[in-house]
Amino acid sequence: MAGSSFGNIFKITTWGESHGKGIGVVVDGVPAGVELSEADLQPFLNRRKPGQSRFSTPRSEDDQVEILSGVFEGKTTGTPISLVVYNKTQRSSDYSEIASYYRPGHADYTFDMKYGFRDYRGGGRSSGRETTARVAAGAIAIKVLNSLGIEVHAYTKAIGDVEISEDNFNPEEIFNNMLYMPDADAAKRAEKLIDEKRSQTDSVGGVVECVVTGLMSGVGEPVFEKLNANLAKAIVSIGAVKAFEIGDGVKAARAFGSENNDAFKADEDGNIVKETNHSGGVLGGISDGSALLLRAYFKPTPSIYKTQNTVNKKGENITINIKGRHDPIIVPRAVVVVESMTAITVLDLLLVSMTSNIEKIKQFFDR
Amino acid sequence: MAGSSFGNIFKITTWGESHGKGIGVVVDGVPAGVELSEADLQPFLNRRKPGQSRFSTPRSEDDQVEILSGVFEGKTTGTPISLVVYNKTQRSSDYSEIASYYRPGHADYTFDMKYGFRDYRGGGRSSGRETTARVAAGAIAIKVLNSLGIEVHAYTKAIGDVEISEDNFNPEEIFNNMLYMPDADAAKRAEKLIDEKRSQTDSVGGVVECVVTGLMSGVGEPVFEKLNANLAKAIVSIGAVKAFEIGDGVKAARAFGSENNDAFKADEDGNIVKETNHSGGVLGGISDGSALLLRAYFKPTPSIYKTQNTVNKKGENITINIKGRHDPIIVPRAVVVVESMTAITVLDLLLVSMTSNIEKIKQFFDR
Amino acid sequence: MAGSSFGNIFKITTWGESHGKGIGVVVDGVPAGVELSEADLQPFLNRRKPGQSRFSTPRSEDDQVEILSGVFEGKTTGTPISLVVYNKTQRSSDYSEIASYYRPGHADYTFDMKYGFRDYRGGGRSSGRETTARVAAGAIAIKVLNSLGIEVHAYTKAIGDVEISEDNFNPEEIFNNMLYMPDADAAKRAEKLIDEKRSQTDSVGGVVECVVTGLMSGVGEPVFEKLNANLAKAIVSIGAVKAFEIGDGVKAARAFGSENNDAFKADEDGNIVKETNHSGGVLGGISDGSALLLRAYFKPTPSIYKTQNTVNKKGENITINIKGRHDPIIVPRAVVVVESMTAITVLDLLLVSMTSNIEKIKQFFDR
Amino acid sequence: MAGSSFGNIFKITTWGESHGKGIGVVVDGVPAGVELSEADLQPFLNRRKPGQSRFSTPRSEDDQVEILSGVFEGKTTGTPISLVVYNKTQRSSDYSEIASYYRPGHADYTFDMKYGFRDYRGGGRSSGRETTARVAAGAIAIKVLNSLGIEVHAYTKAIGDVEISEDNFNPEEIFNNMLYMPDADAAKRAEKLIDEKRSQTDSVGGVVECVVTGLMSGVGEPVFEKLNANLAKAIVSIGAVKAFEIGDGVKAARAFGSENNDAFKADEDGNIVKETNHSGGVLGGISDGSALLLRAYFKPTPSIYKTQNTVNKKGENITINIKGRHDPIIVPRAVVVVESMTAITVLDLLLVSMTSNIEKIKQFFDR
Repeated sequence: MAGSSFGNIFKITTWGESHGKGIGVVVDGVPAGVELSEADLQPFLNRRKPGQSRFSTPRSEDDQVEILSGVFEGKTTGTPISLVVYNKTQRSSDYSEIASYYRPGHADYTFDMKYGFRDYRGGGRSSGRETTARVAAGAIAIKVLNSLGIEVHAYTKAIGDVEISEDNFNPEEIFNNMLYMPDADAAKRAEKLIDEKRSQTDSVGGVVECVVTGLMSGVGEPVFEKLNANLAKAIVSIGAVKAFEIGDGVKAARAFGSENNDAFKADEDGNIVKETNHSGGVLGGISDGSALLLRAYFKPTPSIYKTQNTVNKKGENITINIKGRHDPIIVPRAVVVVESMTAITVLDLLLVSMTSNIEKIKQFFDR
Repeated sequence: MAGSSFGNIFKITTWGESHGKGIGVVVDGVPAGVELSEADLQPFLNRRKPGQSRFSTPRSEDDQVEILSGVFEGKTTGTPISLVVYNKTQRSSDYSEIASYYRPGHADYTFDMKYGFRDYRGGGRSSGRETTARVAAGAIAIKVLNSLGIEVHAYTKAIGDVEISEDNFNPEEIFNNMLYMPDADAAKRAEKLIDEKRSQTDSVGGVVECVVTGLMSGVGEPVFEKLNANLAKAIVSIGAVKAFEIGDGVKAARAFGSENNDAFKADEDGNIVKETNHSGGVLGGISDGSALLLRAYFKPTPSIYKTQNTVNKKGENITINIKGRHDPIIVPRAVVVVESMTAITVLDLLLVSMTSNIEKIKQFFDR
Repeated sequence: MAGSSFGNIFKITTWGESHGKGIGVVVDGVPAGVELSEADLQPFLNRRKPGQSRFSTPRSEDDQVEILSGVFEGKTTGTPISLVVYNKTQRSSDYSEIASYYRPGHADYTFDMKYGFRDYRGGGRSSGRETTARVAAGAIAIKVLNSLGIEVHAYTKAIGDVEISEDNFNPEEIFNNMLYMPDADAAKRAEKLIDEKRSQTDSVGGVVECVVTGLMSGVGEPVFEKLNANLAKAIVSIGAVKAFEIGDGVKAARAFGSENNDAFKADEDGNIVKETNHSGGVLGGISDGSALLLRAYFKPTPSIYKTQNTVNKKGENITINIKGRHDPIIVPRAVVVVESMTAITVLDLLLVSMTSNIEKIKQFFDR
Repeated sequence: MAGSSFGNIFKITTWGESHGKGIGVVVDGVPAGVELSEADLQPFLNRRKPGQSRFSTPRSEDDQVEILSGVFEGKTTGTPISLVVYNKTQRSSDYSEIASYYRPGHADYTFDMKYGFRDYRGGGRSSGRETTARVAAGAIAIKVLNSLGIEVHAYTKAIGDVEISEDNFNPEEIFNNMLYMPDADAAKRAEKLIDEKRSQTDSVGGVVECVVTGLMSGVGEPVFEKLNANLAKAIVSIGAVKAFEIGDGVKAARAFGSENNDAFKADEDGNIVKETNHSGGVLGGISDGSALLLRAYFKPTPSIYKTQNTVNKKGENITINIKGRHDPIIVPRAVVVVESMTAITVLDLLLVSMTSNIEKIKQFFDR
């Protein structure tokens, strides 16, 4: 089935494989009149692309994004924006061996079961390279959200068992270290952990946290198109994500009602606010005006150099050593992917929320 | 926006409020030829309905489900199956006071912000009673899955900090205790915890786990309609769920690649199987033939008798004591809801997966 | 597949069979705050129901509509509105014979091929009675459109070869004759034609025209969700419709560019208007501010008393005489169905069109 | 809103403007294992591209299609196929004047009303050039249908008032004349008409007919996703189409039931067939095993050299003479577009129809 589209009003459709001609996305439903150029998008792609630090694969992918449609005289026209990143440096030779067997933790086996065969070069469509398209589209969503006063920021919350400390939280630190951690101390310890595990031909997982500020209340549609439900789908659709949390998440299950409820209060300006934000910005699936707060849990990179047991396509038990160049951790590069999927989801439901109330519709159409 | 539908090929559309005339669901896309009667559905509704134990609200809801369409001579016809559960015993008088203020942890405030006003009787559409429709639809999905040799089972994994022990896991125990826990010891301790918290006018959260066995490989559509991504949306759309896990979930983020990868092997019959199941039955968003394993984390019931701070509709700070009858914990009643949403999602993507491969399509149409 | 839903933001999901327990529809995405009661809907259902004149089946269907959800204190709440019309007077005995054979012009054969069997009572789901749900939902759409200053009106344009005359067009006449024709003369001739054909145990087809006035420009989404494209789907989805026209329709194919182009001009108030309306109110798939004008062509009722050749389920050639009570023409009852489907489509795309322009979005959210 | 996608299981998403960098389409949901290369697609694009005859614009568009993804080792992989046709020869200078006014019969005015401004170069997104993407996608759909024994063929049925004669119908003639008419005589008369009208600085409309043979019964989903309803949307979404017919179409409205009903019979092999095909291959919205037969009515090209009245963007009444090179008729180039949209629709619903019957599903999964 067509599974490469996401969203209702603001909808993205991605395509491309790791070692094909390129990766792309059609971003449809972008409101007309937004100033947009490649320069708005490239910084987001640069955050995702490999080779930026010693903690990502030394493959050098020259991820230059190109706008092919939907922008005229510097502004979006309301028609679909086609974005492409051509693959320039992939060498298929590195991957020829993996055609014959199923790598543990990868989609090799399930693609063969589903489709009868697979593009085995670098994982084909199941490669993490697919997220390039999400980031390109997310950059547009973030630009639109920013113009409405809404900010979306993600960062690394944990790597393995190294977690940032609330006491040491410094947003300015995020872009100061190669791991996008807002805690310089934790970043150092995490770097050490990654170095250690890499030297052991192993890999590490971690956690990305994303915060949306400035979001008005009223976004999200009960009962299946809730804001949190769509965010869960958006985040879990990212390869390697094994858990999703909103607000207190897993911890909420151990809390008592009196602890977990966020009391409402009128602030000094008479605005209704919450005293705490255990809910993570959503009540009944609708944004509540507080900061939206979510977390994505990533498994460790499945591509490791260690010898592993598996089967080949003939069904024979074999041992393998995966060659090639791989990230010992994908979390730092995934930060901007989480940010992108969050922005895409929020923008889509924000546009949808314009239709909730007949009085506001009458005003909109001046009728 | 229309947010009350879920699914593509197998699609449910729910309606109804806590204190309206009833709760219902249109189940569309059910394959023709499945034997079905109300007797297949009622046991599922009975597991959800309140008043079953001292741990659920003493409200007696007589949740009799009625099939209004789509079944003829005892079989599904392929046309939409309309199910209704009429509300019989709701008394609106219990809820008149809450019209004037915003209950912490509830959707009162966000509904008002979104829609301009709300049906305040028992939470209206945001009431947990909405899940009645999910369960009625889920019972149909489970019937269809069973006919294909697929089983879906959920149970309570934890209540507050009381967790079941793997050593003590006994599936037969699930229906022996009022909490649907497969560990008799844990169930006793959990009952004690709930009693204690209720006496303190407080409430408790918990965790539901769901297992799907017998599922073939190949179900799930990269890259956005992945099986795990749709399950995440399905589960997080259930009111009070704050986190979703597949397989090792949160723990995977602390594991190393060598620990988290599931080795493939050929079993004695030559079938390709996995030695472990850290992935929870999904690789690359596609079912891998292992058991599907997911978890839903529920926050504690927001309706507590304790005095709470909040604001009224005028924006004045007030303190409230919520009256009425409420569950000190919703987890036991939510078990069948998790089971239902899982089944609905799996069946939808299973049907979708029939279209993946041209050779199988040719065989199907005998061409 | 789930085929019983229509619309994106404003979405209807229908259910029910001719001789089942009832016919219903879930109307989701209705903006909150619209005054609504059964009294708003019943007049529309009365226009559709049989037994209103000697030109419709003498079956007496007591089509009382009931609102089951989504309305509170006289206003829509923004949550799904469930409507039901219980079947009260159907007698299955009339239809038992047709279980064994395939009626020409009906869906008996195709339902058996698709689903393996069928609910043969009165056509089951393929009965014209299914349109009851469309009309109930359409009445809500019309109510919302009216509140925005938009009117939707349909009438009978032709019955067999009897067509209304533009010179004789009188909108007030529509409700004065039993055929909903805005031309008293044509109505008389049409009545004569129907009487004649009925006495010959035959049936007649006809044309319904629908006009939407007061619609603002900007509604419709290029390139597949065009206003005219969605109207085409909406209208052709009505049973017995064999052709759809917008504006000059079929005639446009014989016109020359200089005749068919509608010149723009500034009217006395400086508003941009069209001098003619060959386009039928749509340019490039987007409403152009002129009246929307469409036509639905209905085939003659397939149920006739004349002896017909067909096959039975065993594949034997037989001759049949269909019993029961049937409309010699369905067009008059279909007028309100065309009106309903038009309104549903227009409202959906009107809501969608709110998201086209970033400046208007900023204004909407006051940002 | 995102309006550039069409289809459910087999889904296309198009992008691109007349004078932008290119035109493209993402074709998602193509079953894996279909042999495919650019050589399969190019012949379809060549039928659509201009400059093929003196009846189409002398603009020379070098419409070379490129496959960017979804094909590996000569076969479709089941993942999205991205197709692009780069614009090479567009000269924007020809169109600069039209930025200031609204051309009659074009979408200039409605795009400005909807989006606030427009890409005025050659009509931008509303250009007929957009159909390039439909044809590229349609070529894939046709390839898949052919592999299932299903043929899709369209041709010109009429140009202006010159209609093909059934007596003179010769399918081999279709590719022998520049108008794609299966009647050599009619083609000559039509050519004369076009020459005449072009010399008068005017343009002509016409009719395209499309036939699908080999389609099994059972395709189409009651009640809104009927095969004919989706075909109506597909066809009317093509720019310049003003009417859609299935089977007898408009004529059915003047027929009597005894004439219009298609009698079933058992043929010599015992297969159930219809004696006639007034229905055009659809009963109750489901394919009935007969040939599918539909018609698209195209208005005359709105771009004519004749002087026309219109308004400029300031709202002043002006007269204009549109410059540039335009087709005096678009029908011949639209033939392959109708064929493409028909194939896309049929394939999508054919795949969907696999899920209708539980016994066939059990067989498919061998359970």
